[in-house]
This record gives sequence, C-alpha cells and structure tokens, in this order.
Amino acid sequence: MINSKLPKIWYGGDYNPEQWEPEIWSEDERMFRLAGIDVATLNVFSWALNQPSEEEYDFAWLDEQMDRMSRTGVYVCLATSTGAHPAWMAKRHPDVLRVDKNGSKRAFGGRHNSCPNSPTYRKYSALIAEKLAERYKNHPALVIWHVSNEYGGYCYCENCTSAFRSWLQERYGSLDALNKAWNTRFWGHTFYDWDEIVPPNERSEEWGHNRTNFQGISLDYRRFMSHSLLECYKLEYDAIKKHTPDVPVTTNLMGLYPELDYFEWAKEMDVVSWDNYPSLDTPISLTAMTHDLMRGLKQGQPFMLMEQTPSQQNWQAYNSLKRPGVMRLWSYQAVARGADTVMFFQLRRSIGACEKYHGAVIEHVGHEHTRVFRECAQLGEELQGLSDKLLDSRSQSKVAILYDWENRWALELSSGPTVALDYVKEVHKYYHALFDLNIQTDMIGISEDLSKYDIVIAPVMYMVKPGFASKVEDFVAGGGTFVTTFFSGIVNETDLVTTGGYPGELRKVLGIWAEEIDALYPDHHNQIVMIEDWNGLSGSYTCGMLCDLIHTEGAEVLAEYGEDFYKGMPVLTRNAWGKGSAYYVASSPDAAFMKGLMENLCREKGIAPLLHTPEGVETALRVKDSAGYLFVLNHNPEEAEVEVGQEALHELLTDIQVQGKVVVPGRGVMILEQKQK
Amino acid sequence: MINSKLPKIWYGGDYNPEQWEPEIWSEDERMFRLAGIDVATLNVFSWALNQPSEEEYDFAWLDEQMDRMSRTGVYVCLATSTGAHPAWMAKRHPDVLRVDKNGSKRAFGGRHNSCPNSPTYRKYSALIAEKLAERYKNHPALVIWHVSNEYGGYCYCENCTSAFRSWLQERYGSLDALNKAWNTRFWGHTFYDWDEIVPPNERSEEWGHNRTNFQGISLDYRRFMSHSLLECYKLEYDAIKKHTPDVPVTTNLMGLYPELDYFEWAKEMDVVSWDNYPSLDTPISLTAMTHDLMRGLKQGQPFMLMEQTPSQQNWQAYNSLKRPGVMRLWSYQAVARGADTVMFFQLRRSIGACEKYHGAVIEHVGHEHTRVFRECAQLGEELQGLSDKLLDSRSQSKVAILYDWENRWALELSSGPTVALDYVKEVHKYYHALFDLNIQTDMIGISEDLSKYDIVIAPVMYMVKPGFASKVEDFVAGGGTFVTTFFSGIVNETDLVTTGGYPGELRKVLGIWAEEIDALYPDHHNQIVMIEDWNGLSGSYTCGMLCDLIHTEGAEVLAEYGEDFYKGMPVLTRNAWGKGSAYYVASSPDAAFMKGLMENLCREKGIAPLLHTPEGVETALRVKDSAGYLFVLNHNPEEAEVEVGQEALHELLTDIQVQGKVVVPGRGVMILEQKQK
Amino acid sequence: MINSKLPKIWYGGDYNPEQWEPEIWSEDERMFRLAGIDVATLNVFSWALNQPSEEEYDFAWLDEQMDRMSRTGVYVCLATSTGAHPAWMAKRHPDVLRVDKNGSKRAFGGRHNSCPNSPTYRKYSALIAEKLAERYKNHPALVIWHVSNEYGGYCYCENCTSAFRSWLQERYGSLDALNKAWNTRFWGHTFYDWDEIVPPNERSEEWGHNRTNFQGISLDYRRFMSHSLLECYKLEYDAIKKHTPDVPVTTNLMGLYPELDYFEWAKEMDVVSWDNYPSLDTPISLTAMTHDLMRGLKQGQPFMLMEQTPSQQNWQAYNSLKRPGVMRLWSYQAVARGADTVMFFQLRRSIGACEKYHGAVIEHVGHEHTRVFRECAQLGEELQGLSDKLLDSRSQSKVAILYDWENRWALELSSGPTVALDYVKEVHKYYHALFDLNIQTDMIGISEDLSKYDIVIAPVMYMVKPGFASKVEDFVAGGGTFVTTFFSGIVNETDLVTTGGYPGELRKVLGIWAEEIDALYPDHHNQIVMIEDWNGLSGSYTCGMLCDLIHTEGAEVLAEYGEDFYKGMPVLTRNAWGKGSAYYVASSPDAAFMKGLMENLCREKGIAPLLHTPEGVETALRVKDSAGYLFVLNHNPEEAEVEVGQEALHELLTDIQVQGKVVVPGRGVMILEQKQK
Repeated sequence: MINSKLPKIWYGGDYNPEQWEPEIWSEDERMFRLAGIDVATLNVFSWALNQPSEEEYDFAWLDEQMDRMSRTGVYVCLATSTGAHPAWMAKRHPDVLRVDKNGSKRAFGGRHNSCPNSPTYRKYSALIAEKLAERYKNHPALVIWHVSNEYGGYCYCENCTSAFRSWLQERYGSLDALNKAWNTRFWGHTFYDWDEIVPPNERSEEWGHNRTNFQGISLDYRRFMSHSLLECYKLEYDAIKKHTPDVPVTTNLMGLYPELDYFEWAKEMDVVSWDNYPSLDTPISLTAMTHDLMRGLKQGQPFMLMEQTPSQQNWQAYNSLKRPGVMRLWSYQAVARGADTVMFFQLRRSIGACEKYHGAVIEHVGHEHTRVFRECAQLGEELQGLSDKLLDSRSQSKVAILYDWENRWALELSSGPTVALDYVKEVHKYYHALFDLNIQTDMIGISEDLSKYDIVIAPVMYMVKPGFASKVEDFVAGGGTFVTTFFSGIVNETDLVTTGGYPGELRKVLGIWAEEIDALYPDHHNQIVMIEDWNGLSGSYTCGMLCDLIHTEGAEVLAEYGEDFYKGMPVLTRNAWGKGSAYYVASSPDAAFMKGLMENLCREKGIAPLLHTPEGVETALRVKDSAGYLFVLNHNPEEAEVEVGQEALHELLTDIQVQGKVVVPGRGVMILEQKQK
Repeated sequence: MINSKLPKIWYGGDYNPEQWEPEIWSEDERMFRLAGIDVATLNVFSWALNQPSEEEYDFAWLDEQMDRMSRTGVYVCLATSTGAHPAWMAKRHPDVLRVDKNGSKRAFGGRHNSCPNSPTYRKYSALIAEKLAERYKNHPALVIWHVSNEYGGYCYCENCTSAFRSWLQERYGSLDALNKAWNTRFWGHTFYDWDEIVPPNERSEEWGHNRTNFQGISLDYRRFMSHSLLECYKLEYDAIKKHTPDVPVTTNLMGLYPELDYFEWAKEMDVVSWDNYPSLDTPISLTAMTHDLMRGLKQGQPFMLMEQTPSQQNWQAYNSLKRPGVMRLWSYQAVARGADTVMFFQLRRSIGACEKYHGAVIEHVGHEHTRVFRECAQLGEELQGLSDKLLDSRSQSKVAILYDWENRWALELSSGPTVALDYVKEVHKYYHALFDLNIQTDMIGISEDLSKYDIVIAPVMYMVKPGFASKVEDFVAGGGTFVTTFFSGIVNETDLVTTGGYPGELRKVLGIWAEEIDALYPDHHNQIVMIEDWNGLSGSYTCGMLCDLIHTEGAEVLAEYGEDFYKGMPVLTRNAWGKGSAYYVASSPDAAFMKGLMENLCREKGIAPLLHTPEGVETALRVKDSAGYLFVLNHNPEEAEVEVGQEALHELLTDIQVQGKVVVPGRGVMILEQKQK
Repeated sequence: MINSKLPKIWYGGDYNPEQWEPEIWSEDERMFRLAGIDVATLNVFSWALNQPSEEEYDFAWLDEQMDRMSRTGVYVCLATSTGAHPAWMAKRHPDVLRVDKNGSKRAFGGRHNSCPNSPTYRKYSALIAEKLAERYKNHPALVIWHVSNEYGGYCYCENCTSAFRSWLQERYGSLDALNKAWNTRFWGHTFYDWDEIVPPNERSEEWGHNRTNFQGISLDYRRFMSHSLLECYKLEYDAIKKHTPDVPVTTNLMGLYPELDYFEWAKEMDVVSWDNYPSLDTPISLTAMTHDLMRGLKQGQPFMLMEQTPSQQNWQAYNSLKRPGVMRLWSYQAVARGADTVMFFQLRRSIGACEKYHGAVIEHVGHEHTRVFRECAQLGEELQGLSDKLLDSRSQSKVAILYDWENRWALELSSGPTVALDYVKEVHKYYHALFDLNIQTDMIGISEDLSKYDIVIAPVMYMVKPGFASKVEDFVAGGGTFVTTFFSGIVNETDLVTTGGYPGELRKVLGIWAEEIDALYPDHHNQIVMIEDWNGLSGSYTCGMLCDLIHTEGAEVLAEYGEDFYKGMPVLTRNAWGKGSAYYVASSPDAAFMKGLMENLCREKGIAPLLHTPEGVETALRVKDSAGYLFVLNHNPEEAEVEVGQEALHELLTDIQVQGKVVVPGRGVMILEQKQK
C-alpha cells in the first residue's frame, strides 16, 4: 500500500490553487467532495513562488493550501517544485540554462529547462526539497513526495562536457579502453587526452533524429544524460529522506519515453508513477503494454497512474474528446494492469498559457454540470466502493517480454540496415498478439530473473550484455521457451559487433547462423511458408522490413522464405536446448502469423487465456492472497457478450453475481472476483 | 483622389534605371509612352547608392531620373530607399543587423534586414527620408511617397529585448499586472524584475511554426514587433511631412501577411497600397477578399494596387504565365474592389539576382513585340480612356465580415484543440459563399462601426476584446444579423480564457453554452442535419474539424449533429435579441451549407445580389455621386452569357450600350454605368 | 596503364588493419589470397595514429603493414590520411574546425571536417603527405597515392571569408566589376569595400536547399569552395611529387556529387578514381552515365573504380543486399565503361561506429564460407584471367552529352521558373534514351573539342560561357548535329541574363526566339504533336515542367504544342546551319519521344547501335589497338537471348567462341573480342 493513511485507490490529480483567487478555493473544495477526490498533487511548478529570490523562501501560500487540503479531507502528493527553475535564477546563474543539441545556449523559458550538471540547479533543487521535507514532515495531509516533474531532455553545455569526461573516466578507467570501446581508429578519432572528447551533438557527431557517426559515443551520452538527471533526482530524494524516511517518494515517468533508462530510475523510486496520454488512434494494446512495462520497472509492484486527462489533450494534433465512458474504461485499464491510483492532470483547468485546452475535472465553465464532471464523480464513487480490495494485488504472468532502453538506443542509433526498424513497434507486435489472445504478459528488464516464466520473448535483442546469453541458456535448459528475432545478438554493450557470426552470443542456444541481413523497401515483402501445419499455423504469411538469411546449426526449420534468392532458406526455427526450446523469427511477420505463433507457444506450455472474448474486449487479472480480480474491459462502443464460465462470480462494481454468458455494455467494465487456485 | 496632379487611374510600377546603362533609358521612355505608363516608383532599393558612406550623400543620379521622368510625362512614386540597409552600415554598425528566431545574429544580406529597434537604423532611415523630402518637395514629378518596402520580419536582438521590456512596462504598468496577464504562475514563470523577461523565440518559449509555451508572451511579442516596425515607418513619415505636408505617404502592404496588424498601420498611412501576387491556384474569391480587406483598412477609401506582375512570378514553386487576358482581368478586379491605381513590379526586368525571372512590362528581350507588352499597352490605353471617372468611387455593402490580426495571432498560437484550424481559411469560407452569390461584402476591423451593416459575420472570433461584446449586442438589438462560429468568445485580449462558459462574453447574445469542443481527425466528419426546410436549406450537410457541443440558452435550434455521441445536439442556432438575430455555427461546414446559409440571411434582410451570373463570373460595384459602376469579370477562359436587365446601360470600355443577355468574352471585363438609386 | 608494377585490372580495396589485433592479420592474408586480392588501400583515416601530437610522428605501424603487404604480394594504394584531422588538432588549433552554413562553429567530430582555408590544416596536411612520400618513395608495394578522401563540404569561417575576398579581388580586379557581375544595385547591395562582403549562408543570403537572394554571390562561393578544397589537394599533390614524381596520384571522387567542379579537379589528377554506390532503385543507365562522366573528366582516359560495396550499404534508407551475381555484373559494368580497377570499400568489415553494417569482402563472421566472399573470389579469379588485355582500351563514341557543374549550380540556385527542374534528371533523360538504344555516348565537359563527335547534346545549357556559342556554331557548320533544350542560353558565367531574346548567344545557331517560359504544375502537361511522321516519330507525346513559347527565326518546325494558349506554337525545331543542324526541344518530353528523337538523329548520322538487345541488356565497347571488347551485361534476373552476328567471336570470360543467338544468363556478362574495323 503506497501509504496506509489512504487505504483505497487514490483519486485526484494535479491541482494549482496558486493560479486562482481565494474565492475559487471553496468552490474547489465543494467540487472535490462531489467528485470523491481524495488526493491532490500540489506545488509542481511553484519554485518561483516558493523562492522569490536567491536569499528568500516563502511557503506561506503552501502552508495555507496544505492545511486547507487537510481540512477538506484531501491528501497531498507534494511536489518539490523543481520541474522549472525561476526566471531570476536563469538571469543570475546562467549555468542553470541548457545548451541545445545544436550548440545554442538557451534563455529562460519552458520547463524541463535546467541543466542536470548545473551546480546552481543541483544546489538549489536539493535545498528546496529539503526545506519542504523539513517543513511538512509531520503534516497530516502529506502522503507522498513527487520529485520534480517528467524528467527529460538533454544538455550539451560546458558543465555537462566536463561531467561527461569524468563519467567516462570512471566507466573506462583509461583512454585505451575508451578508444577500443568506441572503435576510434575508425575515421581517425583516437583520443590522447580526456579533454579532447566533446559531447556528440549537431556540432560534432550527430545530425537529424538519432543519426550519428559514432554509435559508441552517442550511446554513452544517452547513458550519461539519463544518469545525470537521475543524480538530480537522487539529490532531492536523499534530502527528503533525511526528514521523512517513511514517506514514499516518486517522480512521474512517461511510459515509453525514449531518453531515460527507467529500469535504472525505478531502483531509486519507492513507487513508480507515470502519466498516460494515449490519443484516439493509440492502439489499446499499446497502452496496456505501457502499463505492464511501468509495472515491470519494479518487479510487479503496483504503480501510480499519476496523470491522465479527464477528456481532452491539448498538445496532440487533433485533440479528440474522450467519448462517454472512455475515461472510466481507461482508468480501470490502468488499475487492471497494476495501478493503485487514478489521478488526473488536472483538477481545475488553467486559463492561460499552453495547457489551457487540456481537460480537467473542473472545466472553464466552473460548475459540476458537465459531462466530464459527471463521469469523474461517478468514477470517484465507484472507487470509494472498491475500498482497499484491490490494493497491492499482483499480476501473475507466465509469459514475459524483455524491454531494454539501452538496446533501444543502440538500435535507433544504428546506421543501417534499415530506417524502418522501430524497437517499440517490434516489441508491440509480440505484445499485441498475446494481448489479443488474453494471455497475461509481463514486460521486464533484462536483469530480471527469468526462471519464474515459461516463455520469454526478446524482440530484436540487438545488444547482448555480459551474462545475458548464459542466462538465456540456463532458462531454456531449465525448460523455458525463448523467442528472439532478426537483428539480435549483434553487438555488445558498447555497440561493438560480436564477430564470428550473428546472432553472436545467442547463436549457440538458437542453433542457427545468420549469414546476411537483407533490408526490404517498404513496398517489398517476402513470405513465411510453413513446412507443415503446426496446430493451424500453416500455409503462407507475409513478412518484411528485414530478412535474416540463416543457416541452421542444429535447429529445426519450421518455416522458410517464399521468394527471392533466399527462397527456401529458414525463416522460423526451433532449437531444442536442454529441456526447453529457443525460437528464431528471422523477419518481421504479419499479425496473423504472430498470433498463431504465440498461440502455439502458449498451448505447448499449457498457458491458458484468461477468458475467450470478442474482438476489443480486454482482460487482465490481479491477484491478492487467495482472490483473483478478473477485469473485463469492453473497448467497443457496442455491448459485447462474454462467456465467464459456469461458476457464479461476484462482480465488484455492480455488486451482483454473474455466470455464463454476460453482456458487457459498450465501454463497460466488469471486475469479477475469483477464488484463486 | 490620391494626388490631383494625375487625375486618372495611375498606371505604371517599380522602375530601377540605376541597374541599367544610360543608353537603355531612352528606350524605356519610348516604351513607357507606347504602354501608356504615367507613374514610376523610383528609389526603392537605392540606399547604398544614395549614401555611399556614413558621411556622404549623393542624389545626383536620382535628380537626373526625377527630371527625366518629368520630361517624359511620367510621375514619380518616390521611395525612401530604406527597404535594405547598405553593406557599409552593417559592417560599421552591427546593431542594424537582426537576430533570428533561433538566436543567431545575421550578417549583411537580403532585404527587410534591419532591426526595427536599431538606433542606427532609426537614425539614418529617418534622416534619408528627410533629405529626400527636402530635396524633392517641389519637384513636379513627385506625386506620392513610398516609405521603405514591404515591412516585415521580426528581430530578437538585445536592443529589441530592452525595447520589449519598456513596451511591456508601458502596457502593464506593474509586474503584478503582467504576471497576471500572462498567467505566469503556470510552469513557475513569475517575473520579479523586468530584466528577467526575454523575447519568446526558439531559445526560450517557441519552436516550430507558431508553437509556444506561453501564448500571452508570444502574442505580446507579435504586437510589439508590429508596433516597432510601425514606429520606424512613422519616423520616416514624420520626417517627410515636415517638408511635404500635402503629398500623400504610403507604404506597400502585403494583403493577408500575418506578421503586422495592418489596421494599426493604416491609421498612419494617407492611402493604403498593397502588392497582389496570386498564383495559378489562388481562388479568385481569395484575391477579391484581400482587395476588400485592403479597402477596409481605411474604411472604404480607395487604395493603390502598388505591385502585381504583368505575367510571371519568380518565387512561387511553379511560376505559371498569366494566360492572355488575365493580367487585364485581374487589374480590373483590383479596380472593381477599390483600387485607383494599376501598378506593376516591374517596368523593366532586372538581369541579375533573385528576381530576374519575375515578369516585367519590358522583358529581357527588350522590345515591345511581346504578348506581355501588347497586353500592357492595351490596358494602358483603356485606363487613359476611363480618365477620372472611377476615381474616389466607393463600395456600398450591407454585409461585413470581421477580420482581426490579433485574433489570428492568438488562434495560430493556440496549443489545441486542433492544428487544422486556419483563421484565413475559415474567414474565406464565409466570404466565398457571399462572393459566389454576388453579394457585395466589406472586410472590416473589429473597431469599425457596425451600425451601417445589416449582417455582420465574425468567423472564429476567438479573442473578444473589451467592449466588443456589448457592441455586438447593440448591433443585434438594433436589428442586425450577427453570425459567429465555434471556438469564439474564448479568450480576452491577453489570451486568458473567460471563465463561466464558452463563448464567454458572446454567450448572452447567442443564447447558447458550448460545453465541450471536439477536434476531429482530418478524415472524420459529422453532419449538419436541418430540423426543417429553411428556404431550401434542408436535409444533411457535412461538417468537421471542430465541433462545439452546445446547449441552447434561449436560442432556437435550426440544425443538429447527425452522428457521434453528440448526435442530436445543436449545430446551428438562432437567438432572437432585440430586433435582430444572432447565429452560431458550431462546426466548420461544407460549401453547400455555407452558400445556403448566406443566401437565407441575405434574403431575410432584403439584400439582393448585384447580378445573377454563371459560375466564374465575378461582380462588384463602385459608386460615386449618383453613378454606379458595375464590374462584370469573366474569369472563365470561355465566354459567358450574363443577364444585365432590361435597362440600357453604358459599357465604359467598349463605349456601347448593352441590355438583356450580354455575352462577355472569356477573361473579358465589362464596366456598366448605372444610375444609382 | 596506371602503374606497370601491376599490369592487370587491379582488385582489392580499403583495408584498415590498424582496427584489428595482429592475430587477425595473417587470416586477412590467407583470405586475400583466396580472393585474388592484389591491391589494398591503406592509411585512409590514420592521421591521429600517424601523428599523435603536434610534435610527434609515428609510422612504425604503417611500415609494418606496407612490408606485410609486400610479402603477401598485395600492392598498396597509399592514402595520405588527411580525410579527418586528429582530435588533438581540433582542440589545440580550432581554426581546423569548420563553420556550418548556419554560422555555427563545429566541434571535433565526423570526417570531411577540416576547413579548407585553415592555415593549420594546410600546413600539417601537406607536411604529412610529404613525410609519407619521403618514407615510402622506394617501397616495392607502393603503386599509387590516394590523397585525403572524398573531398567535400563547405566552410563559412573567418579564414574562408578572408580568402573569399582575396579570391574575388583576383577574379574581378575591382569592386566596380564585382558590383556589376553580381548586379548589386538590385536590393541595394553595392559594396564599397572588399571587407563588406560576407559568405552567402543562412545568416546572409541563403536559406533552405540552394535558395539564395543573390545567385552571383552564391555561385561564386561554390566556385571558391571547390577551388579552396582543390588547393588543399594540390598542396599534398605537390608535396608528394617532390619525392615520387613517377608514382600516380589520385583522390576518390563521388560521381555526380554536386559541390565540386570535377572537370577542374581532374586536371590536377594523374588518374581519376571514384566511389560507386548505387542503390536498389538507381537506374542502371544512371550508373552507366556516371561512369561515362568519370571517364570524360580526363578525355576518355581509363579510371579507377576506387570503391564499391561487395554487397550492402549502411547509409541508405533501405540497404538491400546485392543479389547474387550483381556485384560481378556491376564490376564489369564499370570495366566496360572505362575502369581499369575493381576495388571495394572494404576488405574487412569494421566492428564499431557508423560503417559497421557496410558490406566487406571479409564479413563479421570472419571466414570465407559466405556467399559474398565466394562471389568476390570468383571475380578475383576471372580478373586474373583477363590479365592486361583490357588495360588502357578506350571508348569510341560519336555522340556526346555536355555536362557542366557551374551550369548545374546556376540552375539549382535559380529563383524561378520552377522548383521541379533538376539538371541531372534532364541530362539523364537524354542519356537514358541513347543507353536504351545501345548507342555509345561520351559525357564531356564544355571545354572539350566537339569536332570528333557527330552529335552533341546540351540539355538545359542555361549558362553559356565565353566562346561556347561560337564553338557550337563551328561544330554545326562543320556538319555536326547539335541538340539543346528549353531554358538554355539564358545567362552568362556570372548568372547575368543575356538580353535581346532567349536563348541568348545560342539563338542564331538554333534559329528560334523563346519569348516566354511557362512553368507547369506537376499534374499539368502539354503535348508534342509531330507535324508529320519522321521515321516513326509521329502523332502526339506528353511533355511538361517547362514550356518555352518559341518563334522560329529560320528554323523548321518539326512538332508543335497540343494545347493551352500556345497550342500550335513550335515545340521541336531544326535549324539548318552550314553542313549541320541544330535542334531545340522546347519542353521536357516523355521517354517515348526521347527515344524516337535520339533514334532518328543517330540514324541520320549513320551511328549504329553496338547490338540490338532485349530490355535490360546493356552493351559497351572498349577498343585497344586493333581489338574491340564488346561487353554484354544482362541486368535481368532471367536469362536473355542476344543476337551477336554471324561472325564467330571469342568470349573472354568463358574462353569459348560464340556466334548468332547467344543466351546470356540472368545477371550474366559476356566480353566479346572483335576485330576492330
């Protein structure tokens, strides 16, 4: 439980009373009560207010708000306000300002605007975090700390340059080691002095989006920047913990955000929280996958849905309204996949600047007689009804998909073989097939223990770090099913190719050798032709983008290419290894193949779907003690009929018993309580 | 009349004899006479020639040209030459060079290249204007002053930064007021010192095209830049007026150019002039609308067509030739809509640099035996024939469309609800329907008196400034028909949302409340379903982009949405208010609906079309004393039959009487003289 | 013969042993022998290795490699290593770093990274070249020098600015002449001091891709930059020649690379070499045209194919494998068109940085059992079999196409009449038609002697330099056929329009006047309607992009436009002039017209195809002494039947006699030895 002060699914969101006159506040309180709001995130962007000058702090306004929240029965998720530095600080200490990728020094503006290696920023952000912790450590409203906000963005200033050199010295020990790791003899880049190294940006090695001359340098700069921002977070974390060791600390992550290695970050967070902003055309399964990834950051521990919009976004190209029922549906989707909070950005809509057309519980009209408010209030009531029933429940998956930020960086920085390769898309292909089959799946990091899974899938595992290959070998030897794909096992952790034949360290367990990798134009395709019918997976499927030309070295050929000069070469192989099997998918298949393959693998391991549901009906299971909570989420606008089995089950939201064929309304939700076997 | 020295429609254009050897000049004179040219714009880009160094001025060449023009019977539109600063000035006084939006200081080059807050530029531009005025004040050829050229472009230098701070101090008085106006508590932007404020650009608050974090700051910077450039204009204006108080002064505007608030500019201009450069695919009605807007800048006063090309442009992607007859046709379109001049860029084509493929009266071949020259000469003769007949005649419209640059800025800067919203396109939708119906329409600013109109249309009047709402209320109460649309009445003049329900201050007069605003993807649409047949407006029409979800508060529902969850909610409403009606169009309709709606509104107010014409035949009326001049412009390449009524009318260009069915040749023009009722 | 030490078609490529541990070297040697490799390019990017600091040089590693090559029987193409400067140099002497087009000073990184006017770069690049020449002048392995690598890229720093001013002073003598040449009175650009001139870039006159305000300035900067880089090359060339006057010197060019005037460069090179990187969708005829152009740089002298990939590229969007047989086929295509070497980038694939996915003879797997290696080894064996048979043989073309870099620059910088005009595409249209007809064609510079050709084609010869027009007149008068097109003869060498009627100086010989130039939108077209059947060229063809409106002045009209207001005006004309004819093609025709036109012109001059071949089968002829070597290259994946005539011919690769109908396998090659008449 995040904090036992509030033993239910938290309901609330970002709240900026400092943008409003006091007469609005009592109206807010009234409406919070109407909506069942019990947690408010305060102080996210108030650094300039809290510290009007270098010497002066003023928390009077925050004292008042904290007390007011307390009186209203609303708990506070207290932010440290360091998500944007004050204008006076930028003027007085320009070292807080970032230098852009193009080498241009920024002026004051925006947010995420502080250089992570700025001495000024580090000093004053830690200081204000400490002041807040000291001041509010015993405040009854305080339930959690929210450090800064949506960390992100890179800097290329002189301070970062120096810090990068030190970080490299620490990492590599010697210039010899660094020169080797980056293969600097290519293009005559040998460094003879640490000071010769400059950050990779548009003035040195990079251009466009993720294009670089030196993958090793660019990869390390991503690591270094993720690390630098994490250091800033940790300075605040430590400052807070001095005074409130028992209050949890988080910072709000951004799902698939590419710039930070969230697995590293999660280690330093007491609870993961994240901001979920799908658009009208985001696949439901991609949102589900992201929730599962956020849950996976801390080994399945429940997370916080820190932000979502009650209805509309403002920064998308076309900001559709969430259709009636969708906000509730997506809120339960989060809970179904491990969230113990449902929180919004924002409780009251601001009237100026760039987020004024971002939806809120309290809209510009200011009263409760809106569709959006009614939906919020209904959900608030329901969540109160659920009480602490679901808190701390866990998912129990037998299938895991590996996800690795460093692998993503290396892939995205690669020059060749194709610009079409998108790590997230390839991962999602596998996830989507499992999702469609109602197979509960974990999204895990490469350091996790694999032994609790029956099936582990590693799409495009391009970078293989030390120890990973033998972990996979052990997993398969122990009976596990391992699946990987084209363009895997290619490089080590500094992006140097493992010579001796692709897929490098994974070659043995896969029993294949990939001789060549063909890149197809977007309008070119090949076929996956099954050798024989494999439980319905038969005939021919489409594949494309990349086609590995592989030779078996012990593996069995399940399918071969259907055309081109490599027609007849293997495209799907299975290698028996110990008690298990390792599959290699040599190209990027169509959805039909994907689903058939996943179905067969699960069938072989006896992994059953949570339910059989019509198209568009999602399922997910959370388990606590002896109870299972099976969520049935109908994403269709029309009602759907679902067979839930002959045993009578308690549906939590309606408090009735259901069995057999049940009709779920369009965009409706059921939470079925099961006895856990 | 612009200047009584030349009591006819002026005919001529930009002329750069300084680019040519003297032997060419006499050839020019001969050809000017052949073409009927009687006005030449001199000295537009001759600053470097006039002032070879900081200390030295040399007008000998210009004396010679002025005298030569005089002798040739050509009057001079005399430019002040400040459209581009000399290279020596850039080298000696770098403060004249602008800083780009990305923060980069420019070097010498281009035109529109001076910082508007450069002390050097302000000093020397005013000085040369004064010197010219003093020198040529009594010159017989002088008929008008042309200050600088096509003002535009923004600067972000240190001088502009300081001037911006002063401008803000003047505007807001206190930082408190400014912080409130910009809502700086959002994202912790509170300013404690004026010097903390920096211009909004790519180094601070903006990125891409019109994207900003702080709408209030960006909006004010646009105001400030428009104002700064206007100050430069005024410095020259004042310097000129000291010596030639009676010679009119203008500067050439650029129609729908987004960066300057031309309503503010027109106040300081004796006569409006503008440069008209449609391309092959510019809708005829958009050009017409722009002429009407230029006429509207000074309350209907005739304007100058300062520039158009005789045939070809050079800076468009595909520079089509103007088809035979098109130059004449478009020239009369300008006159029909209020121009008292027909002028070209340029009289002789230059041979080097970027405009050498821009058409001219005298082409590179140098002689008169070209199609283009023949067409120019024919028009010159016709305009001489018209003498002063049309001069100073006015349009008399009962319908007005409001157009506001600040509203445009605010709309374009808005983050959400859709990137598809284009102010000019929405305004043009309404204009186009009226144009198609041959309803004479004025394009007016929001400060104009509305009482002389029967119908006032305010498309997407997003920003409502103080006093505007009550002016609309009075207008409607007095019997007027007011029309506005979705996403209107949202913000005040600093882009702060008016709380309490959209459309804010316009809510009362419209009798509706807009609860939500849905943004549709480009391939999504909804329907406007008419409740009942309204004079032929019946059944269903397509709409899209934005859909306001409105509730009536007194208004009558004329049409409702046809699908989605807001099917059945109002999309077209009419509110009775005093003696008049206020209409709200809650989405962006298709052309058929638009035309039907405009037809009905005009019919209700008894506003009749100028004529009924076939597709592609434009009409416009200018009125002087007791005479009306009805222009009939056939934009089709084929001839068109037009019914002009049973009364015999004098056609000015052919000098014959016409009545009944008249055939207008392809791309032909008629000017029918009517007795005005 | 490039170097008599190695009297055969050289076979090898770039080799970077310094990137590998010594244990790999012996493996390399073994595989070189297996593959028939006899030349290796060493030291391309080893500056940092050779000169670890300003004071220190260390060639020990290179001594070892040179000796090793010698022992292995591999000759060395020795690079000077100046393609990328060392990191220490960038840190110590920032003048070596370029300033980008946007005015931003670069930091260390990439390659092609040195400012060509940097005193440091010039000093140390010449110095290391000299040291290498002195050290290895008598080394038995040395066969050719390879200066720097793929010169290219522009700089805009202060040193370049000064050098540009000096270059201009030299070129123009006086500011008066310069002001005139650049037409600086346009937009008030008159320069009164050389120091007022700044390089044209994004801070001054240019923006986007090739957009400029002043064509003259931008054109001269391209000339100056090409010249500056060439000066760097010449400094190294001269330093080398001091010690090895008899060893040939080259630098690897890049085919159609736009930034350097390769005709100027070739004058300073002993032998032309170039890097050929077609992609899957590059037309075969475009590669052929580029080979022919590279051969034309030095009047037909054989060139070196310095780089090609054995299979895959890395920097294309979609890096397809070269299909089986394609590497061999394309290698023979190079030889067929004048190459006396077949060389690869690279011999062993690197394992880190941006080219690790670029194909190599020795792939990452490291052994010889790959498809790619087998194909390389087969080709190596064949080339050994050919011995010195083909060396120094020449092409004998009666048709030439003119190609001019300065014309290309001027065209691409032109503002108007259309953005669709692409010089290379227009040239390729003509080349492609001839290629399809199996007509051997030379690609030549405008300074070449035309008299040896029967037909000379000058597509879009926009810029006509002094003397060119009279050379064309002489050529035609002597019986030649000259063909040029729309938008030709427009400007002189400083991009000033030749007044008096297009096509300027070419007007007389063409017997036409182009009055106007219409630019068509991409979806608009016109027709070429033949006046009468001309040997099968009859009826109507499509044309578009630009349409010159021409009048004949003596020329005969062969075809006229089919629509628009210029329907019936000439679009294809022939002017009799002396003993020859000059054709004008007034628009950009479709491929069918193009082929018919070329066929007719060749038929008239009695120029016969090399062979008649099916679609996709290329032919080319090299001639030496009394023998001709006719290459037949089947680019189809399927076999093709070719009629080679009744005379029995020796096929060199199979060493058999062929005659009559011969089947060439898919992607197969024949080299038929003919007696030369």
